[in-house]
Amino acid sequence: MKVLITGGAGFLGQRLARELLARGSLKDAHGKPQAITELVLLDVVRAGDFGDSRVRTEVGDIAERSVLESVIDEKTAAIFHLAAIVSGQAEADFDLGMRINLDASRLLLETCRQRGHKPRVLFTSSVAVYGGDLPDVVQNDTALNPQSSYGAQKAIAELLLNDYARRGFVDGRVLRLPTISVRPGKPNAAASSFASGIIREPLNGEAAVCPVAGATRLWLLSPRKAIESLIAGLEIDAAALGNQRVLNLPGISVSVDEMVAALREVAGDEAAQRIVWEPDARVEKIVGSWPGRWDTSRAERLGLSGERSFADVIRAYIEDERIQVR
Amino acid sequence: MKVLITGGAGFLGQRLARELLARGSLKDAHGKPQAITELVLLDVVRAGDFGDSRVRTEVGDIAERSVLESVIDEKTAAIFHLAAIVSGQAEADFDLGMRINLDASRLLLETCRQRGHKPRVLFTSSVAVYGGDLPDVVQNDTALNPQSSYGAQKAIAELLLNDYARRGFVDGRVLRLPTISVRPGKPNAAASSFASGIIREPLNGEAAVCPVAGATRLWLLSPRKAIESLIAGLEIDAAALGNQRVLNLPGISVSVDEMVAALREVAGDEAAQRIVWEPDARVEKIVGSWPGRWDTSRAERLGLSGERSFADVIRAYIEDERIQVR
Repeated sequence: MKVLITGGAGFLGQRLARELLARGSLKDAHGKPQAITELVLLDVVRAGDFGDSRVRTEVGDIAERSVLESVIDEKTAAIFHLAAIVSGQAEADFDLGMRINLDASRLLLETCRQRGHKPRVLFTSSVAVYGGDLPDVVQNDTALNPQSSYGAQKAIAELLLNDYARRGFVDGRVLRLPTISVRPGKPNAAASSFASGIIREPLNGEAAVCPVAGATRLWLLSPRKAIESLIAGLEIDAAALGNQRVLNLPGISVSVDEMVAALREVAGDEAAQRIVWEPDARVEKIVGSWPGRWDTSRAERLGLSGERSFADVIRAYIEDERIQVR
Repeated sequence: MKVLITGGAGFLGQRLARELLARGSLKDAHGKPQAITELVLLDVVRAGDFGDSRVRTEVGDIAERSVLESVIDEKTAAIFHLAAIVSGQAEADFDLGMRINLDASRLLLETCRQRGHKPRVLFTSSVAVYGGDLPDVVQNDTALNPQSSYGAQKAIAELLLNDYARRGFVDGRVLRLPTISVRPGKPNAAASSFASGIIREPLNGEAAVCPVAGATRLWLLSPRKAIESLIAGLEIDAAALGNQRVLNLPGISVSVDEMVAALREVAGDEAAQRIVWEPDARVEKIVGSWPGRWDTSRAERLGLSGERSFADVIRAYIEDERIQVR
């Protein structure tokens, strides 16, 4: 079985690759595990290849048809489409967001359709497809109402995938991811970047700016659970999904104040005091439009699960990233 | 004021043009009536020009950038975007539906953005954006779940327009139209074509095939009210719409059996007996996925209204089209 990860040099892409290589197989459309013989990592920069002969790294612009045609062929049985322009950047550069989040996603589906072998295709989507006056708990039948170009582009990609799946061009599925926290590394241009920064930087002995109020409620998932969910999501039986290919993933609903309390619990007062509160209206507007919780019963029935406590998420981060708490 | 109608040679386009020429003006963004000095009718075939010097007819492919650039300039203050591939045809020819219903709609928005003058742009959408397990009365916050490529393309165009409006590129609005009945003329490739045919043909002394069961519930609007709504919709104050530019238009919820009863009431038993019941699974699947009623309180608050009785709709059709009932 040949597997493709777009955004394969990114944080989630690299983790997913490592996990897939460790597992060695993925279930096919009949629920039967098939050995992964080739894992293609496509990105705009060269992905790490883990010194594994199954890995092939490709560098290219995913919005170019020839690039997609070079990495998707009739043997490509599973595609994890993670490449995206994040929320803050898609708001700042409208054309770039449209090109990658919309055009490239469509081109990927179209390339699969041309190949004609109906591969499994997993898209990731986001809390950002919701917005406006939301119920306390967003339901599966709550209308999408994106308040950012990123959210609009993700919502459009969902509709495209659903229709391509309904028509039998791909065996598609979309996972709406909670905000991922704690991400290792550096801040990025996502409006939600602070949701990792206010934990990661203080654990590292550094100050972190929190641009939203403490009462702001977030819907979070750890990188560890995100990777588990991506693999489980790709392996879900198509018949169980029917004509509705989009799933709201389980997460934890926490306020920023509760995140800070968890940080204090795990790493002490000193760490929590490294957070500098500097409200940023632009970030508050985007993040404040996202749901703080959604109904996850459908995902749970399909075998997907999230975490129980944010303090555990912080502990898992410390363990996974081998952090020396200062 | 310069006004553009895409799909200007179509049934609604021609009626809208006639009504705009009769009114002579449209309210601008300040609510002030402005004389219509030029009315451009764009379509793939030459539109009728009514022998009116204000009318300019243009023939072209709306998915071509140069065509849109030739009909939208900084003086184009209002655009009614009616051009579309109907539901049955978009299902039969996926690429054509994507090209006209999605690509052309996006190109139209993009052309406006490039011009930079923020015109009022009205898109029409459809019951077909809904589907799946629907509540008896679809609400404003009921999730879209299109079960046809036409519905998916319309839902995507809504999201695009909403985001272009939110970003200030256009002053956009989308009206979700009920199924229009009674349309004059000939059957078309819309899955809902029968909703006019089963009234129009019997009134004309001809047989008409009804491809769905009598219990099938439809959400209908007359052509007369549709045209009124398009104009009222374009004239709504942008501030009253805020960041949610999509409106579910008022209509009448009737079963096909009730439509036939209304036909009998207006034109007698003989007319009703000209309907031939021949279920067509393809049509039933598409039409059966549409809502039979939706909440219209928001549209009503904004001054839009529908009809009260389907018998009145038939009578209005007989009057407007000067039908001699046989």
